[in-house]
Amino acid sequence: MATPERDDAAIVISLERVALERWADGDPGAFLDLSAAEVSYFDPFAARRLDGLAALRSLYEQLRGRIHIDRFEMIAPRVQIAGDVAVLTYRFDSYGGDGVVRWNTTEVYRKDPDGWKIIHTHWAFNQPQTAA
Amino acid sequence: MATPERDDAAIVISLERVALERWADGDPGAFLDLSAAEVSYFDPFAARRLDGLAALRSLYEQLRGRIHIDRFEMIAPRVQIAGDVAVLTYRFDSYGGDGVVRWNTTEVYRKDPDGWKIIHTHWAFNQPQTAA
Repeated sequence: MATPERDDAAIVISLERVALERWADGDPGAFLDLSAAEVSYFDPFAARRLDGLAALRSLYEQLRGRIHIDRFEMIAPRVQIAGDVAVLTYRFDSYGGDGVVRWNTTEVYRKDPDGWKIIHTHWAFNQPQTAA
Repeated sequence: MATPERDDAAIVISLERVALERWADGDPGAFLDLSAAEVSYFDPFAARRLDGLAALRSLYEQLRGRIHIDRFEMIAPRVQIAGDVAVLTYRFDSYGGDGVVRWNTTEVYRKDPDGWKIIHTHWAFNQPQTAA
């Protein structure tokens, strides 16, 4: 049976999937549209956390047109609802010219008057084989 | 001037710091006490996300007494409050026998009737040098 929490979870997963599909085509626009002004962001390439939409926009615009993912899998997405917050976690397997890259992903969404917005993003490698 | 949000941020950072100090001495107990039944957990060693306190307890109990961190730095902690949720993010530099290990950390806390509880943890390496 449908419940508000289940609906919210499905909406958040759907928003994320559409943004990933555009990302896979080199377009960061959907993630930028989804991100809140206060967004915080970690990825494995940046020395520091990015704070705020302007900083995230600067990074993403440098990547526009440079990303191409042939196909991806969003694995075991889970949404934890807490008030107006939805914590979406999943693994992300990205297939392209370099083979597969495996990620762990956290997205914290907040339900704002104008819809769900991402207030925190954390991208990390799943089981990286680190150099000695 | 003190505000409720600023107080909540200080409390969450303080809870985390105390748990890290016990962790640095090989004791995962404070993190287990802080974690909610529904907790989700990513780290760079696990193939999959852990879901639920029993799974997290199983991992942490395997590590009890095996972790020793000489000293650590919690760098640039930031708390984003959204309703009863606090998203704490920081970098964590851990100094020990192997030199320094640098991390990116996300902790999502929820304010429950019995206090702040962690509903999601994401530990990842900061700028890992991956093997070719």
